[in-house]
Amino acid sequence: MVRVFLPAVCFVWQIAMIILFGIFIRYNEESDAHWIEHKTSNNISSNIENDFYFRYPSFQDVHVMIFVGFGFLMTFLKRYSFGAVGFNFLIAGFGLQWALLMQGWFHSLDPMDGKIKIGVESMINADFCVASCLIAYGAVLGKVSPVQLMVMTLFGVTLYAVEEYIILSLIHARDAGGSMVIHTFGAYYGLSISWMLYRPNLDQSKHRIGSVYHSDVFAMIGTLFLWMFWPSFNSAISDHGDGQHRAAINTYLSLAATVLTSIAISSLSQKTGKLDMVHIQNATLAGGVAVGTAAEFMLMPYGSLIVGFCCGIISTLGYIYITPFMEKYLKIHDTCGIHNLHAMPGVIGGIVGAITAAAASKGVYGTEGLANTFDFMGKWKDMMPTQQGGHQAAGLCVALCFGIGGGIIVGCILRLPIWGDAPDNSCFDDDIYWELPEDEENNPPTVEYNNHMRNKAV
Amino acid sequence: MVRVFLPAVCFVWQIAMIILFGIFIRYNEESDAHWIEHKTSNNISSNIENDFYFRYPSFQDVHVMIFVGFGFLMTFLKRYSFGAVGFNFLIAGFGLQWALLMQGWFHSLDPMDGKIKIGVESMINADFCVASCLIAYGAVLGKVSPVQLMVMTLFGVTLYAVEEYIILSLIHARDAGGSMVIHTFGAYYGLSISWMLYRPNLDQSKHRIGSVYHSDVFAMIGTLFLWMFWPSFNSAISDHGDGQHRAAINTYLSLAATVLTSIAISSLSQKTGKLDMVHIQNATLAGGVAVGTAAEFMLMPYGSLIVGFCCGIISTLGYIYITPFMEKYLKIHDTCGIHNLHAMPGVIGGIVGAITAAAASKGVYGTEGLANTFDFMGKWKDMMPTQQGGHQAAGLCVALCFGIGGGIIVGCILRLPIWGDAPDNSCFDDDIYWELPEDEENNPPTVEYNNHMRNKAV
Amino acid sequence: MVRVFLPAVCFVWQIAMIILFGIFIRYNEESDAHWIEHKTSNNISSNIENDFYFRYPSFQDVHVMIFVGFGFLMTFLKRYSFGAVGFNFLIAGFGLQWALLMQGWFHSLDPMDGKIKIGVESMINADFCVASCLIAYGAVLGKVSPVQLMVMTLFGVTLYAVEEYIILSLIHARDAGGSMVIHTFGAYYGLSISWMLYRPNLDQSKHRIGSVYHSDVFAMIGTLFLWMFWPSFNSAISDHGDGQHRAAINTYLSLAATVLTSIAISSLSQKTGKLDMVHIQNATLAGGVAVGTAAEFMLMPYGSLIVGFCCGIISTLGYIYITPFMEKYLKIHDTCGIHNLHAMPGVIGGIVGAITAAAASKGVYGTEGLANTFDFMGKWKDMMPTQQGGHQAAGLCVALCFGIGGGIIVGCILRLPIWGDAPDNSCFDDDIYWELPEDEENNPPTVEYNNHMRNKAV
Repeated sequence: MVRVFLPAVCFVWQIAMIILFGIFIRYNEESDAHWIEHKTSNNISSNIENDFYFRYPSFQDVHVMIFVGFGFLMTFLKRYSFGAVGFNFLIAGFGLQWALLMQGWFHSLDPMDGKIKIGVESMINADFCVASCLIAYGAVLGKVSPVQLMVMTLFGVTLYAVEEYIILSLIHARDAGGSMVIHTFGAYYGLSISWMLYRPNLDQSKHRIGSVYHSDVFAMIGTLFLWMFWPSFNSAISDHGDGQHRAAINTYLSLAATVLTSIAISSLSQKTGKLDMVHIQNATLAGGVAVGTAAEFMLMPYGSLIVGFCCGIISTLGYIYITPFMEKYLKIHDTCGIHNLHAMPGVIGGIVGAITAAAASKGVYGTEGLANTFDFMGKWKDMMPTQQGGHQAAGLCVALCFGIGGGIIVGCILRLPIWGDAPDNSCFDDDIYWELPEDEENNPPTVEYNNHMRNKAV
Repeated sequence: MVRVFLPAVCFVWQIAMIILFGIFIRYNEESDAHWIEHKTSNNISSNIENDFYFRYPSFQDVHVMIFVGFGFLMTFLKRYSFGAVGFNFLIAGFGLQWALLMQGWFHSLDPMDGKIKIGVESMINADFCVASCLIAYGAVLGKVSPVQLMVMTLFGVTLYAVEEYIILSLIHARDAGGSMVIHTFGAYYGLSISWMLYRPNLDQSKHRIGSVYHSDVFAMIGTLFLWMFWPSFNSAISDHGDGQHRAAINTYLSLAATVLTSIAISSLSQKTGKLDMVHIQNATLAGGVAVGTAAEFMLMPYGSLIVGFCCGIISTLGYIYITPFMEKYLKIHDTCGIHNLHAMPGVIGGIVGAITAAAASKGVYGTEGLANTFDFMGKWKDMMPTQQGGHQAAGLCVALCFGIGGGIIVGCILRLPIWGDAPDNSCFDDDIYWELPEDEENNPPTVEYNNHMRNKAV
Repeated sequence: MVRVFLPAVCFVWQIAMIILFGIFIRYNEESDAHWIEHKTSNNISSNIENDFYFRYPSFQDVHVMIFVGFGFLMTFLKRYSFGAVGFNFLIAGFGLQWALLMQGWFHSLDPMDGKIKIGVESMINADFCVASCLIAYGAVLGKVSPVQLMVMTLFGVTLYAVEEYIILSLIHARDAGGSMVIHTFGAYYGLSISWMLYRPNLDQSKHRIGSVYHSDVFAMIGTLFLWMFWPSFNSAISDHGDGQHRAAINTYLSLAATVLTSIAISSLSQKTGKLDMVHIQNATLAGGVAVGTAAEFMLMPYGSLIVGFCCGIISTLGYIYITPFMEKYLKIHDTCGIHNLHAMPGVIGGIVGAITAAAASKGVYGTEGLANTFDFMGKWKDMMPTQQGGHQAAGLCVALCFGIGGGIIVGCILRLPIWGDAPDNSCFDDDIYWELPEDEENNPPTVEYNNHMRNKAV
């Protein structure tokens, strides 16, 4: 079943992508060979003014977060590292193509020729969109099949593009680092799906939940690349100049504070005072999520520290109390604890963003700075900061609705018994989707293995 | 033997490098302290116009690909991870110095003073040159001694500089991402050497070919850093502005498509539908190779997807059918399957480049854009795109000839029985070149180990 | 004890940071929303002139070095990988906040309003400051408690800020890559602390010093990220334009030479000619340390190679002869061998810097270039290069004094029996500070483990 289904889905979707890209997608002015003429006619003095040089370094950092960051963060399970990093790769590779189309239709359709014009900012946005699906993957890690993941991604990207359009364009909320658009949406989307796919007999695979020493070290690779590059994530699409600069500083500070409070709570939570790798791997990142919306605002350095301080505490406490509670009473099993890392900090981030926006003043931002930071231009030119705060809050609600509602619907679709997901006693096990190497220490060579000569073999 | 030979070669070559650098190599205008005067006299308005700011972020990405990307990609073998990452380090550290000299003599010799002037672009080119030798290393991984690798690198860099000069300067082919110059050359160079060094009794080391669970996860680090930074690789030395921008977009898209088709074919190829890590680690990268030449052209987003689509299929099929065939019938053992990852996609990349160039038109590129993209200036100012297509094809042939011819000659040299390579029953084993730690799980402590106290030890 | 002490310290310090940041720290002109007005009034033509675009890519590379580079370099111990990467994270997260304050008071206090104004350069400097504490951590790895590490960091950052102010501002020495300020200071600080904390009975933990196969591969991740990004480290805060460009080239070359000589000496040192991973992991980096001060000067490409050449030899010989000597006769146990990687190369770097500065001439630098490179402006405008050489040497002495003196004092404080450090037979063991997963291969499941359900578990 899987044998035919997964390849078929991959081929059909990839061919569809090629056709749709052929019809719709073209280079934008800055990546088209006409740039040299565009430069002259727009009086642009130098190639360095090409948006590529403003955003490409941040793009690459975001790219690392998507593939290595999310991929390795999920390798902590003792026997699901291939699935973690491999299916992460699959979701992201597919999702970013679909995201370019969906986001293009909503945001960068050229009215002149009906084409979507892409450039470096489109790639960042596509990576952002994929991030929300990878967050959702965290909730169902080890319990779904690759085909289910692709379906989840297809719908996830679609929903994302719509809610993003509503929040950013219709409601005119600002969300540079995506606390609402990416994290809140992605986390509730994943949690709702996990709820719909609840497996009452999952304790048959219980012995496979947990790490081994080196899988925890692998997961730290993911943690650290996420942590280090989060300033780039939050600043990647914010305004040129002070916007990007300030977003990076705020995120840098917030994350630093989170490290200390996560470690503090982790140690406090154990009778022995020992630290738990789960907290270090995850809760230390919460500050980056929570500062996402407000990163480009004048949150002030101490404001960033306060956000990070609180989120480190809340996220770690979430791992200790809320995750077990959710599983036991709400029937939501959350493999990676995305509720603690993305959902709660995302909501906090939305609220912090609303408050910071509402509190903005010409004294702090300057007249031009205020208009520039909040994009009070065109039809929004008479907007007040307090109004903007309201719009931010409305944006958060939209993200929550899309996440929960979308997740329930997609979860229902994924409950259909056609997707080839693992039985309850084979969850968190790479063996059902991957050819595994014979490991000397604990897997004695089997006949099956010997028949399967790796292609690299003599 | 090794004890004296390897250090002697390292010292002699490093001293030679110092002497040659002393005679020949100087900073270029943009890295010399006279830049401040140069800026004034050339009316450059800002330091940001220094080429450093256009290329340094891409350089660092390429640098990561060379050392972590190639290094970790080859760590998949269960007992050759030290050799993979360590000898990769040795080859690259030596090769880049020699490359600066060789490429400098051909490309950046200042006629005024007979000196080579280096800058950030020289460092990128040196890394590129080294990449071709590391590709070649993939074919002979585990079967040659470090001294053989250094000889291979010495000749490889030399041949590279010559073929690069012929292809780019004499023939005036374009090859931004090096499909021909780097990948085709490097892969056939390595395969020819492996052919010359064929070991009929290699099955004595057969049990060491293959991975363990965590070595496959390590290899994924290499895969992902190559995959993520390939857009930087293909855009690192293309034209400022739209050239770099477009090359990054094309590569990004091509690689995304490759992921899906590689996974599809991998699953199809197994009766059980399971995925094979070998394919995920390698074939997913083929799209980056194949789009190398055409990345800076107006390949169009859907064109990039098509290239990636095809290469994912071809490369994965290569691992399944061609690698075993080559070993059995052609007596070419290719440890990492570089024929599938670099040789075939490299040739495809050359062909795609020729077709894209031949199909170029003023309508698509604009008059200035066409001249700018293909560098139709100076003595080439009357060149037609169709002619350019022919030149691209000629370039591909040169790369093939240098790769195969050079590889056969160097392979003959490496067959001399003086290089201290491993016996047939000790291939793919770190134990002959590395002090190994006692591993609790499978290497019982031995007297030899206990005598060897690590220097870090108490 | 630890249970209360570590969380208490984390909370108290983080709250102190928030208060101090609230009082003192604000955005600088380039990260403040007033930038748009500042731009107009200062006639800055484009956002790309914001310092963010000059330095942010380098900042991110430095950030990776601090967290992944140092963190993973220390994972080599078989059972202290969690402590290596986790406490590295803790030190850095705390240290960078304190560094922003300390360095701010000395370097960027705005006399108008008494506030510290931060931007991207402040973040780089904070990371640099933290680097010196992480170097010191290398000497005491596995032997101290997290609370001791935090105390060490608190004092280390404080001392660093003072010595940096004396060296760079009062003495007017140049030290772009921090050979003196970061490496010499940090290494002697750590070694002095290790001397004060000498444990005569450490051989009770001897069996835990040493690596396993995969922990050595993890450590190579740290090595390579340090090695690759060192050009960014040395160029991150040097002058815009040629300064950054030249610093990157010099570091790139020096490191390449170090690889060859480290490998040569490593092979020579063993009767069997085998290579030792300790040397490859560490000594290959010495060239980056030693070229730190002179990287922005006209050291010339061959000069960089010579520095790298010598340091590879000296550092590797240090691991072979000096580390055991220091432990046996000087009672200094240096877990990571920082004396070989940071102390000696740092001192060499200071000397190379002094010589290069003293040898500077208008012929080589140009009149403007000389003034620009050495910052001969304001009260220093009549300074001669030979004088500058003397000042460089004086700077080196200051770094040594602060390192040794500060280390002795802080070491005395850390000898107080209140810090909860591990007993002599539990050093280098994650088990006392971390909840460890049950590892199938060598840790049979215990009752204690079964009672501790990981929070991720079902």
